[in-house]
Amino acid sequence: MKKIAIVGYGNLGRGVEVALRDAPDMELTAVFTRRDPATVTIRTPQAPVLAYGDLASWAQKLDGVILCGGSATDLPQMTPEVAALCNVVDSFDTHANIPDHFAKVDRAASQGGKIAVISAGWDPGMFSLNRLYANAILPQGSDYTFWGRGVSQGHSDAIRRIDGVLDARQYTIPVPQAVERVRRGENPSLTTREKHTRECFVVAAAGADKQAIETAIVTMPNYFDQYDTTVTFVTQEELDRDHRGLPHGGSVIRAGVTGWNGEHKHTIEYSLALDSNPEFTASVLVACIRAACRLNDSGQAGCRTLFDLPPAALSPLSGAELRAHML
Amino acid sequence: MKKIAIVGYGNLGRGVEVALRDAPDMELTAVFTRRDPATVTIRTPQAPVLAYGDLASWAQKLDGVILCGGSATDLPQMTPEVAALCNVVDSFDTHANIPDHFAKVDRAASQGGKIAVISAGWDPGMFSLNRLYANAILPQGSDYTFWGRGVSQGHSDAIRRIDGVLDARQYTIPVPQAVERVRRGENPSLTTREKHTRECFVVAAAGADKQAIETAIVTMPNYFDQYDTTVTFVTQEELDRDHRGLPHGGSVIRAGVTGWNGEHKHTIEYSLALDSNPEFTASVLVACIRAACRLNDSGQAGCRTLFDLPPAALSPLSGAELRAHML
Repeated sequence: MKKIAIVGYGNLGRGVEVALRDAPDMELTAVFTRRDPATVTIRTPQAPVLAYGDLASWAQKLDGVILCGGSATDLPQMTPEVAALCNVVDSFDTHANIPDHFAKVDRAASQGGKIAVISAGWDPGMFSLNRLYANAILPQGSDYTFWGRGVSQGHSDAIRRIDGVLDARQYTIPVPQAVERVRRGENPSLTTREKHTRECFVVAAAGADKQAIETAIVTMPNYFDQYDTTVTFVTQEELDRDHRGLPHGGSVIRAGVTGWNGEHKHTIEYSLALDSNPEFTASVLVACIRAACRLNDSGQAGCRTLFDLPPAALSPLSGAELRAHML
Repeated sequence: MKKIAIVGYGNLGRGVEVALRDAPDMELTAVFTRRDPATVTIRTPQAPVLAYGDLASWAQKLDGVILCGGSATDLPQMTPEVAALCNVVDSFDTHANIPDHFAKVDRAASQGGKIAVISAGWDPGMFSLNRLYANAILPQGSDYTFWGRGVSQGHSDAIRRIDGVLDARQYTIPVPQAVERVRRGENPSLTTREKHTRECFVVAAAGADKQAIETAIVTMPNYFDQYDTTVTFVTQEELDRDHRGLPHGGSVIRAGVTGWNGEHKHTIEYSLALDSNPEFTASVLVACIRAACRLNDSGQAGCRTLFDLPPAALSPLSGAELRAHML
């Protein structure tokens, strides 16, 4: 059993805890937190909760660490720090900064003789992987990504910052007609507005100007102004009852052609429908820490992404079992 | 430019020729055939058509060979033979014999210091790969594979062997209600009959007993008796006009759960809609020979499947380009 630690015990960390319980070849050894460990209660009886500062002294006892912090401030610092000590995986998702993050983590992991897997999850992650495969197979074609129906935490947070808003939940929704056109191989050019709509459920403070809140939402630059957005005011009870979950998903579609004159159309589609965005992301992270341990056990070191991991390394089955039962 | 040869110039070989033309980093160097080379005309002006027996003397000049023969008799003999001489890829698809084929090819490729990729295509191939990824991510769940709407060559051939049949085309069609139940996460147990229907278009000889032909089809053991099958008699002209293509496709769906009590459902779906089954398969083979050359250039040898190939190795882009633009 590989000994795996979690750093950060929010929604993602709790998802990793469940995914490790369901993995036949790994166990949760400890949870590290930057909060006071005494205030954090986890579900795995035998694993201690420890201060993040203690991780360095524990690293020798661990096979891998799964980082469950945020991309804005936590991971840019933590991933290189931990990669120097132990095999590690993160879900770094600030697309523009991935090359820089990769370089820093690669340096640390190479010096430490460990494997670090960055930007794992579903986007970046499984969606990226499917873009790569589909582009490698169909060089003549176009890529489309649709997100949702799902909760965007960033957009929900943006609404909560508006004066008079107590709470909010924002759903990103693909436009069905746009998805159908892509699936039919029409290769449409689609504007931002034609691809997704946004649906907001908002709890307003007593006496707040609801019209002003709605205007502030639908005109918010980048977040909402380029979309058709609907705003529905609900009570806190309704929000808690009907919009408690964190569902998400979407589709990556490549529509391409083959044939001497491009006469044959093909579409490759990868779709996810997820009841729990953090638990699914966590499940990908757990498969990736397995691969990180495997690669490191075979003598490799440095930074990797899902693009670099042989698929078989993510599975608990052996190569012979995979060939016999899944090929 | 990597120098690639094709062995076998049927539908698949012609598809590989087109895919090589569309690859920025490879060129078709020669076509080898077991027919009289003088009778085979290809579309790539600069590439010679040569006898299969000449391949051994050409191997030094080639970076990779794409085998386009059949799994029944061609590939079990050819793939080990060629793997000893050159990097090679095949589309071996006799599932039960894959472990044995792998062992023989691995021995030959290892001794020759070359990389051989077997069982590439879409099933086995991209479908298998998606089963592997989905199982690694969601260990608690069920797998479903639906094929079609598409032409099954094996079933078409079986109909053609019936007395009084001049020509035939058989389509395999997923039952839409079954696919919907799986997508909704119902995890249904489905019989063979509940998953697919079969549609046959048959050209009967003048004076043939159509009722006898229909009975022979729908009761044919394994091929049709476990399915709801419809038989439509058409003229040779109608068959040639309306059923000339070789479309295919299908979906691999994994429906799984996460959560401490399995309370969150997830579905992962990979779907293909292909106008040309052989050209799409050919496109996968070409991506795989690229990976085979890369692995061999980095000093590796032996047999591989898509399970073992780092995804990035299939793409003509560099690791840095992939991270910057596709992650």
